[in-house]
Amino acid sequence: MKMAIKDLFGRPLTVVNVGLEGFAGAVRDQGVAVVDLDWKPPAAGVRPLYRTASGLDVEEANQEVLRRIKAARPVLVGMGIAKDVIPGMHEHMILHSGPPVTWERMCGPQRGAVMGALIYEGLAQDGREAEVLARSGEIEFAPCHHHHCVGPMAGVVSPRMPVFIIENKAFGNHAYCTQNEGLGKVLRYGAMGEEVYERLRWMETELYPILDRALACIPDGIDLKAMIAQALHMGDECHNRNRAGTSLFLRAIGPALARTNRDNEALARVIEFIDRNDHFFLNLSMPAGKAAVEPAEGVPGSSIVTVMARNGTDFGIRLASMPDRWFTAPAGKVEGLYFPSFSERDANPDIGDSTITETAGYGGFAMAAAPAITQFVGGSPSMAVETTLEMYEITASEHEGFTIPVLNFRGTPLGIDVRKVRQTGILPKINTGIAHREPGVGMVGAGILRAPEACFIQAFQALAAL
Amino acid sequence: MKMAIKDLFGRPLTVVNVGLEGFAGAVRDQGVAVVDLDWKPPAAGVRPLYRTASGLDVEEANQEVLRRIKAARPVLVGMGIAKDVIPGMHEHMILHSGPPVTWERMCGPQRGAVMGALIYEGLAQDGREAEVLARSGEIEFAPCHHHHCVGPMAGVVSPRMPVFIIENKAFGNHAYCTQNEGLGKVLRYGAMGEEVYERLRWMETELYPILDRALACIPDGIDLKAMIAQALHMGDECHNRNRAGTSLFLRAIGPALARTNRDNEALARVIEFIDRNDHFFLNLSMPAGKAAVEPAEGVPGSSIVTVMARNGTDFGIRLASMPDRWFTAPAGKVEGLYFPSFSERDANPDIGDSTITETAGYGGFAMAAAPAITQFVGGSPSMAVETTLEMYEITASEHEGFTIPVLNFRGTPLGIDVRKVRQTGILPKINTGIAHREPGVGMVGAGILRAPEACFIQAFQALAAL
Repeated sequence: MKMAIKDLFGRPLTVVNVGLEGFAGAVRDQGVAVVDLDWKPPAAGVRPLYRTASGLDVEEANQEVLRRIKAARPVLVGMGIAKDVIPGMHEHMILHSGPPVTWERMCGPQRGAVMGALIYEGLAQDGREAEVLARSGEIEFAPCHHHHCVGPMAGVVSPRMPVFIIENKAFGNHAYCTQNEGLGKVLRYGAMGEEVYERLRWMETELYPILDRALACIPDGIDLKAMIAQALHMGDECHNRNRAGTSLFLRAIGPALARTNRDNEALARVIEFIDRNDHFFLNLSMPAGKAAVEPAEGVPGSSIVTVMARNGTDFGIRLASMPDRWFTAPAGKVEGLYFPSFSERDANPDIGDSTITETAGYGGFAMAAAPAITQFVGGSPSMAVETTLEMYEITASEHEGFTIPVLNFRGTPLGIDVRKVRQTGILPKINTGIAHREPGVGMVGAGILRAPEACFIQAFQALAAL
Repeated sequence: MKMAIKDLFGRPLTVVNVGLEGFAGAVRDQGVAVVDLDWKPPAAGVRPLYRTASGLDVEEANQEVLRRIKAARPVLVGMGIAKDVIPGMHEHMILHSGPPVTWERMCGPQRGAVMGALIYEGLAQDGREAEVLARSGEIEFAPCHHHHCVGPMAGVVSPRMPVFIIENKAFGNHAYCTQNEGLGKVLRYGAMGEEVYERLRWMETELYPILDRALACIPDGIDLKAMIAQALHMGDECHNRNRAGTSLFLRAIGPALARTNRDNEALARVIEFIDRNDHFFLNLSMPAGKAAVEPAEGVPGSSIVTVMARNGTDFGIRLASMPDRWFTAPAGKVEGLYFPSFSERDANPDIGDSTITETAGYGGFAMAAAPAITQFVGGSPSMAVETTLEMYEITASEHEGFTIPVLNFRGTPLGIDVRKVRQTGILPKINTGIAHREPGVGMVGAGILRAPEACFIQAFQALAAL
């Protein structure tokens, strides 16, 4: 009887060799393929950091950070209009994704989204007027993250946009996010045009009131932590695959939608809109992550990342120990799958606050739970598994609340430890949508990349000096 | 740097040795665990069967069978009342799961379900009257499979029960199945009592009319093949895990439910009922399988199984080449997880038509797609993967329409070939619910088992003699 060394899936085993060549040779003799690992040695001079300059115990601080994140109970409790409910928001403010950025340095799709939002708000008649206004200084730009908010892609939140309100029941803090528009020619990818504004208007005047009324009759709200946990057992990773989450959300809100129904046809349109947009749940999984992580901010000495966000120009991170300080580097290039007629040349660099999902212990870090996502972002199912395994190397813990069935229900990698990133040379892996680099176009694909190392180098140095 | 031979999930590799001990030793020397495979040699005297006694070409026949099953397009086209729509059904007929069985030989839960159905129909006042009537000969019992029908567990269909109507759009044939009641104290697990009848009455008078009205306004029906394909990418295997399928069904019918709504509160109850029952989709995945496989019946010389069904007393199979002939053996014992206060001693042997899912290329055969199912039926995620891999050994093809992401989108094992079952000694693996052995109790757990070998021995002999 013939036999070969096979992995769990019955495929010929490949062994990854990271050093000991003699051993690799012995394995090769057994007929096992051996490949080289794309592995970088630890950065020269990076020593284990147990205490900061002033003597803060990093490990102790991290345990407190992890305790808070794990204890989080993000619940969708209601909706409201951005200018009414987001702290600090006002009539002439526009929130955007990523670290702070001026109009001058804004990338194309973020500019497109800002101009589109100004037109949608009625503050400008067309793109030219919008650009003049945006450049004038009359509009205050601020990162979503400065307002307990997260926004996918361009991340634009304008005053009259409806937002979901998520309450972290364990700590009482809130987070906010707009409703997801779907894919293609949509504002968050920088698209402009009547089709975009009309959809936003419908989302404000029909989708929002109907969802809002339904939520108001669910006294306990919708438990997003439980929903994310379920979705991870249903092939989602809750960043670029949200088909299960979207389905579970519709199931959960369904009875309340029926009970508060005033117009069958309008209700049908709302269900249809959600049913046709498998990313609808992204705008709930993101603020759930934001609400979960924010209470961990402000723990002195912690080396754990609590914000990781991109504005399409810069990639920025913040640590739990320094929640007011951004460490930034140029946003990276996404390796991806493109829609027909688009290619890499059309792609804007990495953009969006959706990396809050990886920060909170799911998204790209839980890709092992979502092998089918590779049809959207590229790669292979085994790459998806390997991504999760690799992320355990740079995280401080595993999230007992979010488990991955195929890894024997192991908890997801939780809490990016800037020390581990420096020591291993492994950078956080992210999956993301890709926006066209020009304002006004929209989505052109989806893909995978790593966070830029420079952010982590700076953050590590700042931490050591604390 | 230390290294170890690991599998794709980063777990220490275990090599399965099936013979060559020298090789196993060499592998062991590399620090890899070696375990014995629970493997039986081919049954003595079983030779490859290429032609039947009269010269029918088995392979050619099988290709035609597979072509038909793969071409199937099962679509939910509507609903109706059993006695009105199921061919051959009449006022004094009760359908049951599995091969034919008399009242005398019926197992406890099937008797319980029959008695419960007679009370629900108003033909008996209580259990005693129902038993007298069932025994009297006035009620005609027939297998669901004799009426283009499938029923989970006891599989009882009585005249006034509403049923789903599935049309195989590629061949024009129809299949039928009742609505799923949920878990616990339900008729199909043999439970009796007012709670059971009240639920059945509500399903007849509120659930059915609302779903029926909604379906009537979806002109193309609901494509169940596409839905099963999606659910397999979302952690279902569509037999004992139907959480994704149930969610997708609600999404698909949602807009029509809204459009045909006449009573908000009734609609809310319907959505709630489906939302609270993750097995709701089972009663759609089963008739989808039946509708897909039935056109393959009647192909002379085929060695492929088109029916695999259990009545709790007998396990029976039928081949595509002999659709009128059952090959039976005693129903097996299920290895399972039990609800609190129940144990193996309470368990009835294997029961139900739900093995149509394995017959049609999903269910237990697609367990690799559903690692989280092991929380319900027992076993481990790697066992789930191994089950699918093993089933490729006894199936004639792979279903291109149903793919498994974690196996690199390989098609599911399709078409149990009775020749391969005989030659390999590998028996089909099934996951199933477990009914209490006494009438009137209901569900006690869920588990896993294999089909009995005797059915396949008989079927193989009959095929050879054709």
